[in-house]
Order: sequence, then C-alpha cells, then structure tokens
Amino acid sequence: MNNVFYNQTLGILGGGQLARMLSLAAANLGIKTHIFCPETDSPAFDVSASHIVAEYSDIQSLQLFASKVDVVTFEFENVPTATLEHLHSMHVYPCAKALAITQDRMVEKTFMAGLELETAPFAQISTVSDLQKALETIGTPSILKTRRMGYDGKGQAKILSKSEASSAFASIGEQPAILEGFIKFQREISVIVARNRDGETTTYDVCENDHRDHILFRTTVPACIASDTATKAQAAALKIIEALDYVGVMAVEMFVVNEGKNERLVMNEIAPRVHNSGHWTIEGAKTSQFEQHLRCVMGLPLGSTRARGIIEMNNLLGEDMHRLPELVAMPDAYLHIYGKKHAVKGRKMGHVTFVK
Amino acid sequence: MNNVFYNQTLGILGGGQLARMLSLAAANLGIKTHIFCPETDSPAFDVSASHIVAEYSDIQSLQLFASKVDVVTFEFENVPTATLEHLHSMHVYPCAKALAITQDRMVEKTFMAGLELETAPFAQISTVSDLQKALETIGTPSILKTRRMGYDGKGQAKILSKSEASSAFASIGEQPAILEGFIKFQREISVIVARNRDGETTTYDVCENDHRDHILFRTTVPACIASDTATKAQAAALKIIEALDYVGVMAVEMFVVNEGKNERLVMNEIAPRVHNSGHWTIEGAKTSQFEQHLRCVMGLPLGSTRARGIIEMNNLLGEDMHRLPELVAMPDAYLHIYGKKHAVKGRKMGHVTFVK
Repeated sequence: MNNVFYNQTLGILGGGQLARMLSLAAANLGIKTHIFCPETDSPAFDVSASHIVAEYSDIQSLQLFASKVDVVTFEFENVPTATLEHLHSMHVYPCAKALAITQDRMVEKTFMAGLELETAPFAQISTVSDLQKALETIGTPSILKTRRMGYDGKGQAKILSKSEASSAFASIGEQPAILEGFIKFQREISVIVARNRDGETTTYDVCENDHRDHILFRTTVPACIASDTATKAQAAALKIIEALDYVGVMAVEMFVVNEGKNERLVMNEIAPRVHNSGHWTIEGAKTSQFEQHLRCVMGLPLGSTRARGIIEMNNLLGEDMHRLPELVAMPDAYLHIYGKKHAVKGRKMGHVTFVK
Repeated sequence: MNNVFYNQTLGILGGGQLARMLSLAAANLGIKTHIFCPETDSPAFDVSASHIVAEYSDIQSLQLFASKVDVVTFEFENVPTATLEHLHSMHVYPCAKALAITQDRMVEKTFMAGLELETAPFAQISTVSDLQKALETIGTPSILKTRRMGYDGKGQAKILSKSEASSAFASIGEQPAILEGFIKFQREISVIVARNRDGETTTYDVCENDHRDHILFRTTVPACIASDTATKAQAAALKIIEALDYVGVMAVEMFVVNEGKNERLVMNEIAPRVHNSGHWTIEGAKTSQFEQHLRCVMGLPLGSTRARGIIEMNNLLGEDMHRLPELVAMPDAYLHIYGKKHAVKGRKMGHVTFVK
C-alpha cells in the first residue's frame, strides 16, 4: 500500500467535469491534481493545483506534465495511443490494454462475447457490401455505429430497412463500423466497478438509467430489477474488469430484457473511466466513484461502496439552468454545477442528486 | 435571491484549511474562489481558481483582489479592521460589526451579557492593579486572557492563587486583558448557526467537543445533553446571530454545567466563521457548514441542516499522520487531508469523520 499518498500529485488527461470531480475527491485525500488539456478555461482548472493547455500530440508538453506528477490517469476513453506511449515510463492507470479494447466497438464486443457474456448480435462493416450482407443475418431494426470515437449517440445511424444501407453508411462518413442488432430491452442499467493496484475489486449497487436524445437523463439506485439479476450484473462487471487487468473505476452498461418472469442481461458497452451514471455516489455512497478511482490508481485500499439511501440523479443540461433557483432551495437536492461558461442546449452543465 | 450565483467569484481572506473547504464547497455550486493570503503554498491554493500572495495591509493588492470578485468573506476572525475598510464598497460578509465585537473578548463577553445570556464572571484588566482587584471578586482558579488575537489556548494564563497576578500578567505580555472566572463544566458544546442575506436563520444539531492541550480533539453529534438543553443552546446561538445582524456561518462555544438534575448553559465564545467543531457536517449533515456559509454570503436560500447519522469527528494533528494507512482502510472513515507540506506536532493536518 501507498503510505505516503498525501501530497502526491495525480496527473489527469482531460479537463472536463469528470477531471473536476476527480480533483475535488483528490483534495479530500490531500492529493494535488495537475491537468493536461487542450481547451482553455476547462472546468477542472478551477479546482486543481496546476494545469497545462496543450494538444495531446505535443510531446514536449507531455514530458513536462510527466515530470510533475506521480501517477497519470484520464477522464475520457479516446486518449490517443501515441500519447500513452509517450508516458510509458509513468504509472498510467487504467492500462493501455483496456483502452485499446474499449476504444474500438468491434474489439470490445468481441472481447465481451469471448467472456461468454451476451451481447447484441454484431458484424464488422468496412464497406456497403459488408453492411448489406450483415443486414441479411442481423435484420432490422439495427444500429450502425462507427468503431471509434462515438459518444452520446454521435457516429450512429438507426437502420429500419435494408434499402437504407448506403445512406446509413454515408451518414457515418463511411468509417470502419459495426452493425448491431436492435435489442428490445425493458430497462438500461449500469454497474460501476473498481479494481485497485493490488487486484482488490468491488462494485456499487446497480444503477438504472434513462436516456433522452442519447444523453443520460436520470439514474436511480437501486435499479428496479430482481436481486439475482443485480447479482449477475455485478458478476459480469467483475468478470470484465478482471479480464482487462484493469486498475481504476469503470462502468459497464447493460440492457435488461424481460422474457416472461425472467430477466436476461445483454452487455452494451464499457466506459473505462468514472461515469455519468455513477455521479450519485458522491452523496449516495460511502465512497464516491471519484475517490474510489483515486484509491485504485494511487495504490490505496478500496473504500466502502455502501449506499446511503434511495437515490435519484438528474443531469442538468444547458436548457435546464433556469431550474437552478428552484433546485438550490430544495431540501433534498445536492447540486453540482461544473463551472462551464456557456449554457448551450444539450451540454452537460451540472447534475443534481436526491437522497432519501 | 441570487439567480445567477454560478460562475460568480467569491474572494476569501485567508488560505488555510477553512478557505480550502470553503473552496471545495463553492466548486459544487459552480462558484469560483479567489484567495488572498500572505503565506505562499497555502492549502486553499490547490483548489481555487486563483490567488494573490500579499500582506493584509497591502492596499494595492487588496484593490486588485476586490476588482476580481463578487463577494468577499474570510476564514479567520482577526482580519485587520483597516483591511475591511479598504473593501468597504464590496459585499463583505460577515459584517465588520460582528468582527469588531468578536475580536475583543471584553466586548464579546459584555455583548453576550447584554443579551441576558450567562457568561463566566469577567473583569477588564489593563494593569496589574486591575488584576489584583479583580481577583478579589472573581477569585481563583481563574483565567487571564489577552483581549485580542488569542486562539487554541495562546495568550492565556491560568491563575491558581492571587500571588500569581504579576507573573500571569507578564506571561501574556502585559497586554489589555480580561480575567474570567473558572467554570466547573460537565461538558463543552458548540452550536453552528447560520443566517443568510435575507435574514433566514438555521442551526445544526448541537456538537459536543473534547479539547486536549487547548486544541479540539473530538466532536460528537448529537451532544449527550437533555433535549431542552439542546433547544436552549440553539436558541442562544440564534439570539446572538440575530443581535449581530450577522450574515454567514458562525459557532458559539458554550459550557454545560450540571447542577443536580439540571443543566445550565454558560456562553464561552463566538467564532465568526466556519468552525472546526462543524467539520462533521461535510458528510454528517445534508448541507455542510461550508456550503451553508456560501449560501449565506452569496444570497442563496439556506440548505437543510438535517443530520445523516450519529457522528464523530477527530482532528488529525502532525503527530497523528502515522495513522493514515489505518484510517484510509476503515470502511466508516471519511478522511480529509489539508495538503500542508510539513507534519508539525500540534499542527492541524486533517480530520476524519465517522458516520454511523
């Protein structure tokens, strides 16, 4: 164990709200944060000891960054592989292997299927002809997704009939893609799971998630599922984190499919980082996902994931900011505003958690 | 109410752990902090948007500071009056009146007695002869305290017999002083009380405090006192905060004196700021004292003070830092390390809260 964790410095690639909340959790443990990020005025800058504004490809800046920190982590999964290679002599967590798998939807789905976890039927797409062939077996409705760099519904096209193949492929820029069969699910859940440098693991209570316009709208905990479904979901997340040899917190998103009285789990995707569906843990669990991630990457024992009540978390987008006067006056509301300058429609500006 | 509180900047005079925890609470509300403080490497710098290192008498730096913030507050009661005068055109909370009263123990005790709240018997001391006279009426044991600038037992001398008058007065540097009769108390308590810009008030559950070597060692909540004693303690704190026309969070320290079955309250002192005995509120109450103070000074409604369990808070001094590996592994412990470089004996390095 790391006995002298306090006064160490954690370097974070990325300066958005996740890096901001990591920095706030770090402060409680006496750990300083140093942010590396291309955007000026990033939300994490206001609560970190120092920052560098530079591109992820800027080797000199990366070296300067590395010289000032004890451990490196990141807040987003699309860290360029070359960036990580330049930091290879550092303690970087999570590891490059986990990133390589989760950055590519095709590799990710293949990996999960290899662990004998159920996924939607999927096929690799490089050409329109691949897509036409895959539509024969997978059928419609189905979803065409770019293999890389998609998030919050970006880089996706829903296909309702086979005739849409070429227009759908064009709409995602004819990039390397994956076709996924459409799952008729009852609900979406996620499991926040953690593994530290000693290989200890833990999960939080299963989260139930509602999305609107492809953006997380609401998380409720506990999820309204059978207890053995919850146990299976947690076991699947643990299987994945162990197989990745992962260090840190990650989220596994799943679908719950009802078949009569039974609930079946279908894996959707892995987010190799702290996750929006885990924001409720700040007040809703003994140890927040942010502190847990720090504990993992800094070489500390895991914290308790015990829930502190029945929880609902709502995202606050640009168009929700008029609700602040009402929310700040509500006795049960824990407000989190990320310090972004401009309240743009669809932009995540903050969140609010209710604990009962 | 302040509808556009987020993205405003709060200026804080002082950069210690209280300013640090105020900054962390500010971040949750999307409020930036700007720290003014003479010491380099201050704990609050690591979690604030910006800072100025300058003396409190440096008028130019104060003007620069004032130009960058929307509201000014402070983390310590000994802010020089001249400093506040230079900020007179700003929103400064708490107000100068409250500071003027609480900076001088003689004025403070006279003020509380004027509110018909019981205090220890006291007398104003300017000369050894004053002290000799006062010892005739107040008797021994008694405590001689400088009127100004004392904290954590500094500037105090216990007097056990009248013959010690001149040595005691010499030991506090022959400064203007107050002699206080010694109270045989059963326990020490404090009430954290808040009043916002609209005059709304609230208190937290009464805290019970153990001191060792004049430094707070442990706070437990709820205090082990009769419920009507708790109600009276809260009423006294509310009476004081109203009479001061105070905006912000403050602590009122009191003694509980047992007389047979009855508990009597004796006021000790007022701390016009967030207070060490309120650190438990971070995880132990719905709204922390730090967020509450921000709500008060930024023009927001008060937050709920509801307790979230049975709570114990322990200070961690320099000599306690070897306990960190044990504490970081305890499932019920919420750890707070202040980021101070050197673990000096008696120095407040952090605290740990247990919620059951």
